[in-house]
Amino acid sequence: MKHSFGSDNHSGVHPVIMDAIVKENLNFKKSYGEDTYTLGVLNSLEESLGGDCTAVFVFNGTGANVVALQAFVRSYESILAPKTAHINVDECGAVEKLSQSRIIPIDCVSGKVKAEDVKLELYGYGDQHHAQPRILSISQPTELGTCYTTDEIKELADLMHNNGGYLHIDGSRISNAAAYMNKSVKEITVDCGADALSFGGTKNGLLMGEAVVIFNNTKNAHAANSIKYIRKQTTQLFSKSRFIAAQFEAYLKDGFNIKLATASNQMAQYLANSIKDIKEVKISQPVESNAVFAIIPKWLTEELQKKHYFYVWNENTNEVRWMCSFNTTKEDIDAFVNDIKELTK
Amino acid sequence: MKHSFGSDNHSGVHPVIMDAIVKENLNFKKSYGEDTYTLGVLNSLEESLGGDCTAVFVFNGTGANVVALQAFVRSYESILAPKTAHINVDECGAVEKLSQSRIIPIDCVSGKVKAEDVKLELYGYGDQHHAQPRILSISQPTELGTCYTTDEIKELADLMHNNGGYLHIDGSRISNAAAYMNKSVKEITVDCGADALSFGGTKNGLLMGEAVVIFNNTKNAHAANSIKYIRKQTTQLFSKSRFIAAQFEAYLKDGFNIKLATASNQMAQYLANSIKDIKEVKISQPVESNAVFAIIPKWLTEELQKKHYFYVWNENTNEVRWMCSFNTTKEDIDAFVNDIKELTK
Amino acid sequence: MKHSFGSDNHSGVHPVIMDAIVKENLNFKKSYGEDTYTLGVLNSLEESLGGDCTAVFVFNGTGANVVALQAFVRSYESILAPKTAHINVDECGAVEKLSQSRIIPIDCVSGKVKAEDVKLELYGYGDQHHAQPRILSISQPTELGTCYTTDEIKELADLMHNNGGYLHIDGSRISNAAAYMNKSVKEITVDCGADALSFGGTKNGLLMGEAVVIFNNTKNAHAANSIKYIRKQTTQLFSKSRFIAAQFEAYLKDGFNIKLATASNQMAQYLANSIKDIKEVKISQPVESNAVFAIIPKWLTEELQKKHYFYVWNENTNEVRWMCSFNTTKEDIDAFVNDIKELTK
Amino acid sequence: MKHSFGSDNHSGVHPVIMDAIVKENLNFKKSYGEDTYTLGVLNSLEESLGGDCTAVFVFNGTGANVVALQAFVRSYESILAPKTAHINVDECGAVEKLSQSRIIPIDCVSGKVKAEDVKLELYGYGDQHHAQPRILSISQPTELGTCYTTDEIKELADLMHNNGGYLHIDGSRISNAAAYMNKSVKEITVDCGADALSFGGTKNGLLMGEAVVIFNNTKNAHAANSIKYIRKQTTQLFSKSRFIAAQFEAYLKDGFNIKLATASNQMAQYLANSIKDIKEVKISQPVESNAVFAIIPKWLTEELQKKHYFYVWNENTNEVRWMCSFNTTKEDIDAFVNDIKELTK
Repeated sequence: MKHSFGSDNHSGVHPVIMDAIVKENLNFKKSYGEDTYTLGVLNSLEESLGGDCTAVFVFNGTGANVVALQAFVRSYESILAPKTAHINVDECGAVEKLSQSRIIPIDCVSGKVKAEDVKLELYGYGDQHHAQPRILSISQPTELGTCYTTDEIKELADLMHNNGGYLHIDGSRISNAAAYMNKSVKEITVDCGADALSFGGTKNGLLMGEAVVIFNNTKNAHAANSIKYIRKQTTQLFSKSRFIAAQFEAYLKDGFNIKLATASNQMAQYLANSIKDIKEVKISQPVESNAVFAIIPKWLTEELQKKHYFYVWNENTNEVRWMCSFNTTKEDIDAFVNDIKELTK
Repeated sequence: MKHSFGSDNHSGVHPVIMDAIVKENLNFKKSYGEDTYTLGVLNSLEESLGGDCTAVFVFNGTGANVVALQAFVRSYESILAPKTAHINVDECGAVEKLSQSRIIPIDCVSGKVKAEDVKLELYGYGDQHHAQPRILSISQPTELGTCYTTDEIKELADLMHNNGGYLHIDGSRISNAAAYMNKSVKEITVDCGADALSFGGTKNGLLMGEAVVIFNNTKNAHAANSIKYIRKQTTQLFSKSRFIAAQFEAYLKDGFNIKLATASNQMAQYLANSIKDIKEVKISQPVESNAVFAIIPKWLTEELQKKHYFYVWNENTNEVRWMCSFNTTKEDIDAFVNDIKELTK
Repeated sequence: MKHSFGSDNHSGVHPVIMDAIVKENLNFKKSYGEDTYTLGVLNSLEESLGGDCTAVFVFNGTGANVVALQAFVRSYESILAPKTAHINVDECGAVEKLSQSRIIPIDCVSGKVKAEDVKLELYGYGDQHHAQPRILSISQPTELGTCYTTDEIKELADLMHNNGGYLHIDGSRISNAAAYMNKSVKEITVDCGADALSFGGTKNGLLMGEAVVIFNNTKNAHAANSIKYIRKQTTQLFSKSRFIAAQFEAYLKDGFNIKLATASNQMAQYLANSIKDIKEVKISQPVESNAVFAIIPKWLTEELQKKHYFYVWNENTNEVRWMCSFNTTKEDIDAFVNDIKELTK
Repeated sequence: MKHSFGSDNHSGVHPVIMDAIVKENLNFKKSYGEDTYTLGVLNSLEESLGGDCTAVFVFNGTGANVVALQAFVRSYESILAPKTAHINVDECGAVEKLSQSRIIPIDCVSGKVKAEDVKLELYGYGDQHHAQPRILSISQPTELGTCYTTDEIKELADLMHNNGGYLHIDGSRISNAAAYMNKSVKEITVDCGADALSFGGTKNGLLMGEAVVIFNNTKNAHAANSIKYIRKQTTQLFSKSRFIAAQFEAYLKDGFNIKLATASNQMAQYLANSIKDIKEVKISQPVESNAVFAIIPKWLTEELQKKHYFYVWNENTNEVRWMCSFNTTKEDIDAFVNDIKELTK
């Protein structure tokens, strides 16, 4: 396929990242994350997030979420998440399988939960019949491409902390959120009170690789100390971990992750702008990262899918998702928009 | 480090494999193993194993074992394995975590179990108090570098089948076994009656990537049909799976996997031959793949470890493991042997 | 406490049942359900349900549900249930813990789901990211005291069967439903297509004891055959099981279970009739078993609770639950109603 | 059957206990262990064990063990147990199912492990590949009828504590051990450093009911605080818990548990003495509670089983188990011994 709006993981690996992989391939190193090189890259990552945290690498996003969440819950404690959360709808029950905990789905708008709706589920503490609500997992940006403001994240973190709980951020596209908000990853996670972050890479130009970060080493010592065993038992420990380290080193150097995210975000804005006046197309979610959601006629979806690859998000409402990648070009967008215009003129 | 005898996963990626990864990086493809390229490579892999099987890719060896075994057991059924099996001693309880099943450790010699010892655990069928013995998992080659003969595998497969059970082969180094036995992977697995195989790549020159193969699609339909859900729920589904496919395509082309395995096997033989007359060194396990195990004085271990990287396998007996890789050279061996000779002369 | 409207498990054991326990206590018998007496009682129970089924005893309702559901799902398959289901809100995550499966909550009215709403969740078959919907668990009567008609149950069973799934009935008060509907337990379960039943006893005069019944031994052989191991592994195997058998023998003899259920149902009707004209009291759910739900002013709840024991069902709506037991008397009701009338006059 | 040497759970309920159940059946009480009566009995039980502990009731022995162990381990931590432990061989994998942890079997003699053998498994702390050894579970008396001395228990407790671990005692017959050792339950558990106890009742004259006790509320606060949720999620919460409370009140009153245990212990001694000179019978384990193990010719087993009920413990060695109950009489023993003598004369 020449280009795909299907997912940002339909694109390949950025050449700079690929180069880092190739360069790393020159010698022997200890495996399983215990080589000084991997530890050094993790240390840099931790420093970029304020230093008071513990990071480990894992293979993929589901793995990152599952490892992070297990560190904070016992099986009789529940995980709160927006209804649209990836962990709730798209991981085939991986979280429940590994944690043996329940996920409590929370109503949300454009993928974002409100503190008042989370609060409705924060009850039953001390009641032996009720799985104890313990951690809230939000996605930033959300699966609908929207971003929580820092104030919103702070409010959610405070709410959870006031109830003896925690906040996890599923940041499979966290760099896109940071780029959109013009802030650092640190500013939109730990500085807002988050306890854990799934720091994504695969969807933003890496071959594969994510980091799990546990913030606040003192308060969250129990989670930080357990994470390496949890990772191994979850099957997420990579023997040749230096090849994730090499990618992350290049990824974080001079804000390269933000540059890549900015590129895909801009393409989403460009796409949204290019189609906003087409009356058959109704942009259905705020465009706050690298995705454009729109409601279009079913026949238009069918015609467009003959030439372009993308997913129908909601069959009932005819909402579609167009996802831009780090290597989506203006030409890709123009060609796509042109086809829409041709079909709807 | 220049060279390591620590593990075959201390080495990097073979240039041919790396080249395949880089070449794959040119366009967009569907993710999660659903692109025609990945499906085509899997098809070739299945063909090379006789065709009547179902293969999927996973990230790593623990993942492969855990996915394969889950496909065959319910939580009240037990998994039999040699005491020295990787799943029994080196996966931090991943199998128990994911399958909720018990592993029953079986006595073994040089990593190999005998049918008569397995038989001792095949009892209690129908007894509600007893976890029902359902699958035997053997490693080929074993963790001690030895190989089961085809007759031995057949005997174990028959034994399990006669008791309504299954045989799984942990083949994280299956190409080394094939190379040593001068047979194809097919001949030492499905042709011997195996029901499932963890087909390794990472330890033989891949960046990362293994395949889970379920043999006998008709008999094992329940396992074959469930495997894609199990993989996802186990966190082992790779979004950009084409990068495993690309490696496997190169790996299997013209028997490249066997060539790489032959190289590391030969280095192990060369090492064993070079040290067999040193009286302080007692080779402690048959050398039947790419590992040499030896019992040496503790002081010698300590001196050697100042210059060379390797692990003590058994602290009580002073047994050490020297593992050769696809890129171990005669010069690496010579330098090492020379140091042993210098230290023991 | 003299009387409680708190729960039907606040009452004790019916003297006839207690007598059966005492009488059973005369000799030695094999344990763990393997004595001929227990097997005989189970056989009678199976016969009363048409014969083509497999029944085992367990300790309690949560145990019955968890054992029954595990028999039908793998961890990557999901369980559908009304939002108000006991398994969804009141078992501290026991189902998820034991099955490692997800529960998908379905919108419901007065505790009952509609086929059209269940249908909305029957999608994603074959999609590896999506936990496969496999079994629907409904409660009969529901936690809100209402009953599904036989037509409604048939429709739900058909819907699930047409999608390769199953129907489980949580019948912790199944005798109350049968009594209300003037049908046998058989007619409202297996005759409507149910695949499994949690057949309750504890809430209707037993000391403790429930039965798990798997219907249709041929079609559901996999479930029926696994159930004894699942029961043991779930910790629900009782050594002195004959003491459940003795209770069930007395419970089922000459429709004694229906007599007890009729008594508590009638008390609920009597209570509802006695208060229906009090303007401060709004009966909030159809009275179709032994519970009366009502919305009353908060001050009234507080005053009543000074003299009577009952639970607030919903703090937000001031809905309360008054549960009648087999041994609730007209005098108990009259005294209660009198207090309401005094307080509201 | 008139009498059974098969198991102490083949006997019924002691009349005093049954009487307590019947007497309790007069009124309404809150359920799920939250009534003041149950709490009062638990408080007495706690006081009898020194006061600094937390006790809850559960249904059965497997439930007690599984609840107690879960309170101390995360899934990546392992449970050490003698090879012959009930949790290792007779619970169909319930511990692994619920805890997702591994059980590491330890060699034992007559059911007892030695500190030096436990020590061999206390390694790999900090190694991410190795399930971290966390709790040792011993049975007192053992499944072979033998008792650890208080010094032996102390040594095991110290060993575990020195390694950051815990000691659990499976006391399904703890009263028999106390009676044999002429000590209180407190003296042979918490006073020896135990962290948790499964306090049995069913095998010593109760209908059903066991207590889980977590000792040392301060040090083990994490376990004590979690236990009520674990119990519920494990399906071991009894609604009409007052009927266990009533049994335990009678059981513990004036040392009634010790009286019952003394009776069955004495019968075992009487049996052992009566047969010790029969040359075909070799008593094979020290008789230190209510069981007699013996090796007898296979033909003798077959002949005896025509008239008496008992189990062959080990088919390979022809070892049989004769278990005495609280209501085994001298006449039962005399008749049995007489038959042995007749058959072997």
